[in-house]
Amino acid sequence: MNTFSRRNFTKLSAFAAAAQSLPSFGQDQKPFRFAAVGLGTISDIFMKACAQSTKCKVTGLVSGHAPEKAAKYKAMYGIPDSSVYSYENFDQIAHDPKIDAVYIGLPNSMHAEYTIRAAKAGKHVLCEKPMAISSAECQTMIDACKKANVKLMIAYRVHYDPIWMRVKDLARSGAIGDIQEFQGGFRAFFKAGQWRLDRALSGGGSLMDLGIYPLNAIRWIAEEEPTSFAAQIATKTPGPRFASVEESIEFSLKTPSGVLASAGSSYGVSGDNYLTIFGTDGHLRISPAYGYQGVRFAGETKTGPIDETSKGVMPYQFTLEADHLADCVRNNTEPKTAGDEGYKDLVAMEGIYKAAGAPIA
Amino acid sequence: MNTFSRRNFTKLSAFAAAAQSLPSFGQDQKPFRFAAVGLGTISDIFMKACAQSTKCKVTGLVSGHAPEKAAKYKAMYGIPDSSVYSYENFDQIAHDPKIDAVYIGLPNSMHAEYTIRAAKAGKHVLCEKPMAISSAECQTMIDACKKANVKLMIAYRVHYDPIWMRVKDLARSGAIGDIQEFQGGFRAFFKAGQWRLDRALSGGGSLMDLGIYPLNAIRWIAEEEPTSFAAQIATKTPGPRFASVEESIEFSLKTPSGVLASAGSSYGVSGDNYLTIFGTDGHLRISPAYGYQGVRFAGETKTGPIDETSKGVMPYQFTLEADHLADCVRNNTEPKTAGDEGYKDLVAMEGIYKAAGAPIA
Repeated sequence: MNTFSRRNFTKLSAFAAAAQSLPSFGQDQKPFRFAAVGLGTISDIFMKACAQSTKCKVTGLVSGHAPEKAAKYKAMYGIPDSSVYSYENFDQIAHDPKIDAVYIGLPNSMHAEYTIRAAKAGKHVLCEKPMAISSAECQTMIDACKKANVKLMIAYRVHYDPIWMRVKDLARSGAIGDIQEFQGGFRAFFKAGQWRLDRALSGGGSLMDLGIYPLNAIRWIAEEEPTSFAAQIATKTPGPRFASVEESIEFSLKTPSGVLASAGSSYGVSGDNYLTIFGTDGHLRISPAYGYQGVRFAGETKTGPIDETSKGVMPYQFTLEADHLADCVRNNTEPKTAGDEGYKDLVAMEGIYKAAGAPIA
Repeated sequence: MNTFSRRNFTKLSAFAAAAQSLPSFGQDQKPFRFAAVGLGTISDIFMKACAQSTKCKVTGLVSGHAPEKAAKYKAMYGIPDSSVYSYENFDQIAHDPKIDAVYIGLPNSMHAEYTIRAAKAGKHVLCEKPMAISSAECQTMIDACKKANVKLMIAYRVHYDPIWMRVKDLARSGAIGDIQEFQGGFRAFFKAGQWRLDRALSGGGSLMDLGIYPLNAIRWIAEEEPTSFAAQIATKTPGPRFASVEESIEFSLKTPSGVLASAGSSYGVSGDNYLTIFGTDGHLRISPAYGYQGVRFAGETKTGPIDETSKGVMPYQFTLEADHLADCVRNNTEPKTAGDEGYKDLVAMEGIYKAAGAPIA
C-alpha cells in the first residue's frame, strides 16, 4: 500500500499539471469520461493512460476503505468530491452526467457485481481480465449490458498493441505457412498477501491471472475456439501461501481444425513470458510478450528472419484500449474485445480446470 | 540417399587420411573398437566422432541393402572386408576379435533385436534413443546384456555435453532456487518418406524422436520419475504423410515432489528447440538445446544474469559419449546413461501416449 505524503503530493501535483496539458480534445468532441472503480495498481496505470489520451479523461473515482488513495487521485486528476463514490453509494453514478463509463480494476470476484451495477446506472463498462470467475457470471454481465444498451469491453491490452496486431497479421497472412501449433507461458513470483492468492477474490490461481494471457492470445490468433483440453496443476511450495489456489498449471488445448496449443503459468517461480506460433514454414516467438512495454518478436518467416520490438512507452497499451472504447461509443460499434471474448476465455479456463481435476465450483 | 561418385570418393579419402592422423591412443591402451550397425545419417556422424576420438575407433560395419554405403565407409575408415557384416550374418561378430562394441543407429523397432544379438555375441552396446519401441522391449535388452555381462549404454548425447552438465550443476546447486517447473519443445519439419513416419519402424511419432529430448532432460535434471501425465496429440496436416504416426503432441508430467513440466514436439512445423528450468529464484533457458553444436543457455540466477554458449564443434557430443563407453568398459563401471535410463523414458512415453488416448499397442 502506498503511503500518502507531502513529498508525493508535490510530485503528483506536478504530474497532474503535466498530464492535464497533454490531451488535445477536438473542438467538436468532448472527452470520453471514465470513473475508475478500485484504486489498486492496475487502476493507477489506467488513470495515467487516460491522462496521456487525446480522447479520454478520468472524471470519477470509486474507492473503498482507503480514503488516502481517493485523496491522491482526486488531487492528481482534479476530480471534484461530487464524483468520488464508495462501493455503497456507487449506484448514484447513474445521476452523474460527468461520467460516461467505468473502468473496473477490482479483484476478479467483484467484476460481475460492479459491471452489472454500472450497466444499470447506464454507464459503459471497460472491465479487467479475467472478465469474472465463471462463464455463468460472464453471461449475466453480457445480458445486463445488452439490456441497458451500454457497451461492454474486456481489457485485453494486447489486442490493441500495434506490435501484437503486426504478429497476428503476419501469422494470419501465411508468412509462416499454415498455423499448426502454439506454445506459451507466463510465470511470476507472487508473495503471500496478494488478493490473487485468495480464491474468494480471485476465483482461481495462476491460470486466472497469468495463464489467461497465452490462452487469450492463442484463441485470438487461431481464430478458433478450443474444444479439447488436458491439464495438470501442481503446488510445490508448502504452507499457507498457496492454501486456496494452485501455484502452477500446464495445459494444452486443441481446436476443431487440429491446431494444438499448450501453455503454462505459475505464481511460484521467476520466469519468462512468451508465446511461440508455429507454422508449416516458419515460427514467430513473442518474448517478452505480455509486459507493459518492450514487447518483442523474432522468428523465421517464408521470406527470412524477422525481429521487431515495440517502441511503445508504458502505459500506451492502456491508452489505446481506453481510446478504443471511446471510439466504439462515439461510433456505436462493438468493441473488438467485447463481453463474448471474456466469456470464451472463462469457458476455456473451466475446461482446463476440469481437465486438471480441479473444476471451478 | 547419398549417391557414391568418384568425386565423393576423392573427398572421402582425403577426410579419412586426416581423420586417421587424429587419434593418439596411449602406448598402453588399445583403441576401443566399434562396429557401426546401420549406415544412415546418425551412424555417419558417429563414425566421424570416433575418427576424432583419442580412445575409440570404428573397425566394423553392419549394413543391409546398400553396398555402396559399406564401400564408402570401408574406404573412409580402412575397414577390412572381414569386418563388414550383413544383417543376416551379423551374429558372426562373436568371432571377430577386432570389434569390442556395436553402435546401433538403426530404426527404433530394430534396436531390441540387434542389441540382444550383439549381447549374445559378447559385444558391448551403445544404442541410439529411443532405446526401443516399448518398455517391455527395453527390459529384454537390459536382461540380455546383464546375462551376457556386456555394457549397455543409451546414446543420450546431452548427458555428456559439458554445457548441459554445467546447466544441470547450476540447477541442482540452487543457483535458481528450488526447481519447480520445466517447459520445453523440439519441433522440426519432416518430409514424407522418412522411416520415422512409418510406425512399423519408429513405434510412434514426433514424441519418440523429438519429444524424448526435453522429456529425458527433464527427468535427468529433476532427478525424479514422473508419475502423472496429461497429453494431447494432433495431426493437422492431411494426407498419407502422417497416416501412421502423430504429427504433434503436447504433454505434461508431474513428479511425486510436485515438480510440473510440459513439452511439445512436432514433425510438421519449423520451430525452435529449447528447455526452460524454472526455480523459485531464477530460470535457465537452453536454446538451441538439442543440436549437435551451438548449445546456449541464458537466464537469471540468484547472483545475476547468465549467458553461455558451447564452444564444442560437431560431432563433439558423439565423441564424448563414445569415449564414456570406452572408459566404462576399461574401468568396469556402469554408463551414466545405462539401459535403465532408456527404459524409464519408454515408461514415461507410454504414460504420455496413454494419457493422450493413443496407447502404444
